[in-house]
Amino acid sequence: MADPRFFRNAGPFSLSELARVAEADIAGNTDETRTFVDVMPIGEAGPEHVSFLDNRRYIAAFEKSRAGAALVHPELASRAPADMALLVTKDPYRAYARVAAHFYPDAAVDARIDSGAHIDPLANIAEGCRIDVGVVVGAGAEIGPGSSIGANTVIGPGVRIGQDCRIAANVTLQYCLVGDRVMLHPGVQVGQRGFGFAPSAEGHLRVPQLGRVIIEEDVEVGANTTIDRGTGPDTVIGAGTMIDNLVQIAHNVRLGRNCVIVSMVGISGSAEVGDFAMIGGQVGVAGHLKIGAGARIAAQSGIMRDVPPGAQVGGSPAKPIRQMWREVAALEKLADRKTE
Amino acid sequence: MADPRFFRNAGPFSLSELARVAEADIAGNTDETRTFVDVMPIGEAGPEHVSFLDNRRYIAAFEKSRAGAALVHPELASRAPADMALLVTKDPYRAYARVAAHFYPDAAVDARIDSGAHIDPLANIAEGCRIDVGVVVGAGAEIGPGSSIGANTVIGPGVRIGQDCRIAANVTLQYCLVGDRVMLHPGVQVGQRGFGFAPSAEGHLRVPQLGRVIIEEDVEVGANTTIDRGTGPDTVIGAGTMIDNLVQIAHNVRLGRNCVIVSMVGISGSAEVGDFAMIGGQVGVAGHLKIGAGARIAAQSGIMRDVPPGAQVGGSPAKPIRQMWREVAALEKLADRKTE
Amino acid sequence: MADPRFFRNAGPFSLSELARVAEADIAGNTDETRTFVDVMPIGEAGPEHVSFLDNRRYIAAFEKSRAGAALVHPELASRAPADMALLVTKDPYRAYARVAAHFYPDAAVDARIDSGAHIDPLANIAEGCRIDVGVVVGAGAEIGPGSSIGANTVIGPGVRIGQDCRIAANVTLQYCLVGDRVMLHPGVQVGQRGFGFAPSAEGHLRVPQLGRVIIEEDVEVGANTTIDRGTGPDTVIGAGTMIDNLVQIAHNVRLGRNCVIVSMVGISGSAEVGDFAMIGGQVGVAGHLKIGAGARIAAQSGIMRDVPPGAQVGGSPAKPIRQMWREVAALEKLADRKTE
Repeated sequence: MADPRFFRNAGPFSLSELARVAEADIAGNTDETRTFVDVMPIGEAGPEHVSFLDNRRYIAAFEKSRAGAALVHPELASRAPADMALLVTKDPYRAYARVAAHFYPDAAVDARIDSGAHIDPLANIAEGCRIDVGVVVGAGAEIGPGSSIGANTVIGPGVRIGQDCRIAANVTLQYCLVGDRVMLHPGVQVGQRGFGFAPSAEGHLRVPQLGRVIIEEDVEVGANTTIDRGTGPDTVIGAGTMIDNLVQIAHNVRLGRNCVIVSMVGISGSAEVGDFAMIGGQVGVAGHLKIGAGARIAAQSGIMRDVPPGAQVGGSPAKPIRQMWREVAALEKLADRKTE
Repeated sequence: MADPRFFRNAGPFSLSELARVAEADIAGNTDETRTFVDVMPIGEAGPEHVSFLDNRRYIAAFEKSRAGAALVHPELASRAPADMALLVTKDPYRAYARVAAHFYPDAAVDARIDSGAHIDPLANIAEGCRIDVGVVVGAGAEIGPGSSIGANTVIGPGVRIGQDCRIAANVTLQYCLVGDRVMLHPGVQVGQRGFGFAPSAEGHLRVPQLGRVIIEEDVEVGANTTIDRGTGPDTVIGAGTMIDNLVQIAHNVRLGRNCVIVSMVGISGSAEVGDFAMIGGQVGVAGHLKIGAGARIAAQSGIMRDVPPGAQVGGSPAKPIRQMWREVAALEKLADRKTE
Repeated sequence: MADPRFFRNAGPFSLSELARVAEADIAGNTDETRTFVDVMPIGEAGPEHVSFLDNRRYIAAFEKSRAGAALVHPELASRAPADMALLVTKDPYRAYARVAAHFYPDAAVDARIDSGAHIDPLANIAEGCRIDVGVVVGAGAEIGPGSSIGANTVIGPGVRIGQDCRIAANVTLQYCLVGDRVMLHPGVQVGQRGFGFAPSAEGHLRVPQLGRVIIEEDVEVGANTTIDRGTGPDTVIGAGTMIDNLVQIAHNVRLGRNCVIVSMVGISGSAEVGDFAMIGGQVGVAGHLKIGAGARIAAQSGIMRDVPPGAQVGGSPAKPIRQMWREVAALEKLADRKTE
């Protein structure tokens, strides 16, 4: 079970309730009132646990699992042990996410403005917010209902935060508008000056950065990620986009909806990324490029040209992923030959 | 116009005032008393706006722009629409930086020590400083006149900060001396122990790090960048150097004057970087190397040997940039041939 | 000498005391009562200083050094100037670390809970701790004896910190258990949600992250490094492991004992790293891989397959380091030939 010092288990739940939550069908004539106390990985689960099979790599473990119940794809249901209750669904991982969240629901916001928070009289905090100790909220800032702000986070003047947001501790927000249900992890820095200056032999002259950061609804931003404000246009993070830790988003970047940006990616100024693009870890994207919707970029790629929608690219400089692998193989062969 | 919730427009200004600020010449017999209300990109500007042309890519947009006035290079002035007032200068981008800063001047420091700041009685805060709530200033620390320190920033004992500095929120400064007019963005960490230890099979033994970080005047350091203190020698950031977000500067590194270090660069211990060197995003520089003055290093390069002054290098391991591109082309051809 | 505004020199010490601390033998019939005031690099040391020779590159400097004493390997002792006192040891760098720490010992913890710290009544702070101003400690958290917590650090509910830890300023700890003598630098973020969701065209669904972060004893973690909590299994950092600045450790990663992880490394979810592995700067490790004990991974490598114990690999995608260099040479030759 998850460590009770950190997580509160809301179970047990009956099989029928879990089927409803999972949006799955119960297979065979199982006892629907049977109860389960927790979620558990397939190799560790016992009769009182519900598990899931999402990856064909784990079929062998599934076949000998002691799990009392499992979320499973219809095509793999026949591989289950005889006494396992089955919750059949075409998307077992998504169903698992729902079941796990049912056992371990997010804690409700304990609405309260700590007396040790520093809130400007001209700020506007809606009902039902939790503002922790040490939080600083500037003049004209607005925080929507049901949002929580972690300790020692600093929210600059005029910043607007939507409802039901989860802003962690030690975050800094400036010059930005944040939509509903946005989750920002600790150490996120949003809205500082972009890296803009007129270079010259006399010394570089800073160019005013007159735009904002717009974070649309349902975005998640990982720990210590940085998002600079625009130079005049805004920097925009589209709805539903997931950003991992230690990512750099430069000024004027526009990320589409439901993108996935893995850790340590750097996206240079004015680049545009289409909806549902997936960018692997440590990728760099040069300035002013366009990454098409649904593109998939392999980890550590260096993107120096536009990427068409749906394309898969890799390498530095990046090229179509099959070409990249052909080049890797060709070079390997060449080096082998030379040393013979 | 820039969002008035975040930016205050100091205009309108007359053409003659803008020419003076821009250090530009008014072309033709334009009405010098005509006023302008804002800066605006060339494609969006209207008759009441001043814009600029800095990049030949935008000549077509310039030719049909509705901007009332534009900063332009003498060679391109003839491409302007007939009714556009021209401010002619050999460096339109630098002139734009001055004009934009004239419309949107940095807010004056609202000199005040917040009662919720925690300042050691043995610290020395000069006149005209702004110290925000939650700031911690240790014994013996000094802050020069006109500097501002953002909320919840922690300044360790003995740290010295010059005048007119802008230290953002959630910064940590230890064991460092900071010059005048330095700008540090949120989450910058300066002066922690370098990564120094004597490795051994019994366990690694920490080596005391007895140096400091010296940040000279007019340096800018981006959000969540880390700069370790030296081992005995100091870590030094030369005057006018611009450092982007999420950069790592290890112990004993010496950066020259007016360098440009783009996001996610890592510079290993004791490396030296000459004046005006430009290092692209995600570059890694191995320890103890010398990067010559004016060198230009392409993004994602891996520097494993010294780089001569003025050289342009790229790739990992890095080589002269033309050679790198030759190798990229040769490998592409080789892989094509093999699959025919 | 180290800047007295930051460092307090505990010397002078006699040669015999230094020999004892260094676990070194005094060579020849030197006066053991002679005293020394400081450590100093070999090129700068004078008669009152103790220095060391660890690297054959510095033999020439050693031969003409004015240092009063030096820590030196027995094989190189004969290269010393005639009047230099010698402290002979097989590991001069480790001996230097001990001597330097003797001159500049870590300051004792000034045990005190600042009245401006915010400690939940249900938290448990042991004797002899230093808790700085602005620190927040949640309900059920425990801090062991002799530990210090820097200003504005936030420690979530239930977190356990061992004894004699050094937690810097502006750190955030959640959902984690931290062993004895752990050192965390400023801006470290531990225990936030891992980057886990079920992707789908309807939008990505967050998967609950029900594990913890376990940091074993004697670990050091660099500034602005991020360590996510596990999904159900824990994320584990083995005893004695050294992690540099701006490193990303994803959910469920298991690092062994005494690993060295250089700056800007990213380790993806569920990867395992064996004891004493060394991972160079900016390396990326893909998910679910195993890096064997004692493996050495060159900077900027991209690890896409398991690495056997003791192996040396480099490149992206990574391969045995000799093969990588052969490929670098082969490509260079190929490109040269094509341009002839």
